[in-house]
Amino acid sequence: MITTDILIIGAGPTGLFAVFEAGLLKMKCHLIDALPQTGGQLTELYPKKPIFDIPGFPSINAGELVNNLMEQIKQFQPGFTLGETAQTLTKLEDGTFEVITNKGTVHHAKAVAIAGGLGTFEPRKPAIENIADYEEKGVEYFIKEPEHFRNKKVVIAGGGDSALDWSIFLAEIASEVTLIHRRNEFRGALDSVEKVQALKDQGKIKMMTPAEVTGIKGEGKLSAITIEKDGETFDLETDYFIPLFGLTPKLGDLANWGLEIQKNAIVVNNALDYQTNIPGVYAIGDINTYPGKLKLILCGFHEATLMCQSVYNMLNPGKKYVLKYTTVSGVDGFDGSRKEAEKSVVKKID
Amino acid sequence: MITTDILIIGAGPTGLFAVFEAGLLKMKCHLIDALPQTGGQLTELYPKKPIFDIPGFPSINAGELVNNLMEQIKQFQPGFTLGETAQTLTKLEDGTFEVITNKGTVHHAKAVAIAGGLGTFEPRKPAIENIADYEEKGVEYFIKEPEHFRNKKVVIAGGGDSALDWSIFLAEIASEVTLIHRRNEFRGALDSVEKVQALKDQGKIKMMTPAEVTGIKGEGKLSAITIEKDGETFDLETDYFIPLFGLTPKLGDLANWGLEIQKNAIVVNNALDYQTNIPGVYAIGDINTYPGKLKLILCGFHEATLMCQSVYNMLNPGKKYVLKYTTVSGVDGFDGSRKEAEKSVVKKID
Ligand SMILES: Cc1cc2nc3c(=O)[nH]c(=O)nc-3n(C[C@H](O)[C@H](O)[C@H](O)COP(=O)(O)OP(=O)(O)OC[C@H]3O[C@@H](n4cnc5c(N)ncnc54)[C@H](O)[C@@H]3O)c2cc1C
Ligand SMILES: Cc1cc2nc3c(=O)[nH]c(=O)nc-3n(C[C@H](O)[C@H](O)[C@H](O)COP(=O)(O)OP(=O)(O)OC[C@H]3O[C@@H](n4cnc5c(N)ncnc54)[C@H](O)[C@@H]3O)c2cc1C
Repeated sequence: MITTDILIIGAGPTGLFAVFEAGLLKMKCHLIDALPQTGGQLTELYPKKPIFDIPGFPSINAGELVNNLMEQIKQFQPGFTLGETAQTLTKLEDGTFEVITNKGTVHHAKAVAIAGGLGTFEPRKPAIENIADYEEKGVEYFIKEPEHFRNKKVVIAGGGDSALDWSIFLAEIASEVTLIHRRNEFRGALDSVEKVQALKDQGKIKMMTPAEVTGIKGEGKLSAITIEKDGETFDLETDYFIPLFGLTPKLGDLANWGLEIQKNAIVVNNALDYQTNIPGVYAIGDINTYPGKLKLILCGFHEATLMCQSVYNMLNPGKKYVLKYTTVSGVDGFDGSRKEAEKSVVKKID
Repeated sequence: MITTDILIIGAGPTGLFAVFEAGLLKMKCHLIDALPQTGGQLTELYPKKPIFDIPGFPSINAGELVNNLMEQIKQFQPGFTLGETAQTLTKLEDGTFEVITNKGTVHHAKAVAIAGGLGTFEPRKPAIENIADYEEKGVEYFIKEPEHFRNKKVVIAGGGDSALDWSIFLAEIASEVTLIHRRNEFRGALDSVEKVQALKDQGKIKMMTPAEVTGIKGEGKLSAITIEKDGETFDLETDYFIPLFGLTPKLGDLANWGLEIQKNAIVVNNALDYQTNIPGVYAIGDINTYPGKLKLILCGFHEATLMCQSVYNMLNPGKKYVLKYTTVSGVDGFDGSRKEAEKSVVKKID
């Protein structure tokens, strides 16, 4: 069982920055995310694209912003449950919360901050009748641990950036990478398209276009896929089949937690602290809604900050909250580290 | 007369970032600041100190953050009235606003955003009877234009960072710099204290400690100051006397504009758009107050963003506001520039 002060559901930019603000107030955080990595939409949907409206950055790539946030929070030693979906939320008798994931991991916390963005990303699945039978038995919609594919045969299907980028990445790891797409044309960063072309020319990626995967075979686990190309149907032996047809976010189980939901978002009290209708449960970032809400990264940062202050007040009744500037008071990490401005000296000049 | 869409009073981080968000919505901004430079508290009080709680920056010096913000907004060509204090606010018959500064500069705008921080910085003045007679006639509390001091004799008084740093800076420009302090010890960055020591040793700064300026002389304009040192009193000829004894923020004239004020801050509607009790007038950043308010830079950024959305809705009644991501839509400057993510290509691989 994992125990923490604030359990954060969603490790996008909002959830990550909440760790920092909580840390300043000496509260520990643990994050759950359905994705295998942190960064939410930024990492999953547009890691190499520039963002122009993060205050203080005339331009910053989404992936770099996530790296910076990870660096900024590391001294507060957040815990992570990645690749698991928060499924149930229960308020216990003592007022604390229990959250259990789809894999059965149990989390206990004094407060819960839902920073779930647009929800969990559900893969768009190819229309292959028996595909569900092979999920996690050779069919993968996310690449959680690239090392699983070392020296294996891999088939990737799709025509966008994910299909291109993972083909490039796995070409160095897998024994064989085949990229299948319904069309001859791919849509993605010029750089990625050109790299795939080069790897194809070097024989490191096999291309099959225009073609479609129409069937899956195997005893208990995938061993081959059926392909239609140029009017012919044939089987191709492979260890893995990775269809990358895009993701759609789904609110998912959160919708059944008794929270007030409007237009796929959780209603919060924006006049105070972004708390939901369940006291002790907050919703911050893209997942919440209130009059005038903007689904922007910089708004999530503010909401996370006010949420942490509210949790602090809840957990320390009667104690007066005194705002400390990081510049003046420094940052004391839970790992014993300390960041601080250079101290003034008092020194004679003679 | 200066005419703009949003007139921003205060060019601290909050006011600066508002220019960016307004620009995304095609609204022009003009900023008034009492200080001779932009950046508010960051530039005036701690330009060389690191801030640790700006999201995405594990550490950034205050001065660098201001530079970044200036760079981020430059394509929206903000106008500036610097070194002037906004003194009166009048709502005109057509619903627009007129703001006049202490120097008589007239500004007209469709909306006003007060981003005045803790107010205007009033210098702490030395207790010299006739000092007011010489203000701006040789006595300066701010250094607006360092070039004014070229080849002039300058006396600086004070024992902190400002006195040290301006002595160092003016040592290269003025014909003579004398630094006077009541004590032998100075309080400041080690680096600054050591530099002053070195410049003193090279004869580029004259030190007078412990000593005090007790009088000012001159016909119509300052020509000498009276100094007490070691029980003796004597006059020193100088062109300028710059006492740097610290600043205290004062709400000032804003307090008489009919705004609802609580604890030296302007009450706003944080449940919607940070508007004040005067429709069309907003207050953002340190200057406002609401339940749970935190005087933090990152909060000002969020408030500025929601304020701009509200002004947009006010100026474009009936038009539906559609949020555009900068990553997806790019940033079109008023100067004809365009920032955008690299476009995807659609390209055959063969
Ligand atoms: C193409 C594109 C361009 C964009 N450009 C900009 C821009 O220029 N500027 C800007 O400010 N914003 C931009 N955005 C929006 C920005 O990405 C979002 O505002 C931001 O990601 C929200 O952060 P978040 O942390 O609230 O949520 P997210 O980033 O969505 O992260 C939420 C996380 O929660 C997880 N999660 C959800 N439910 C559960 C559950 N039950 N259990 C476990 N995990 C769960 C998800 O897996 C996800 O990782 C853009 C978005 C896209 C798609
Ligand atoms: C030593 C110190 C350390 C700090 N450390 C941190 C930190 O680590 N993190 C953090 O988030 N915050 C920190 N802060 C607070 C931070 O500086 C403020 O939150 C921030 O400056 C507020 O920005 P602002 O734009 O709202 O106002 P300000 O920066 O105060 O700017 C307001 C501007 O308005 C001008 N103005 C006011 N009235 C008028 C008028 N009538 N006419 C013309 N101009 C006017 C003023 O001259 C000023 O330049 C610190 C502050 C100090 C003093």
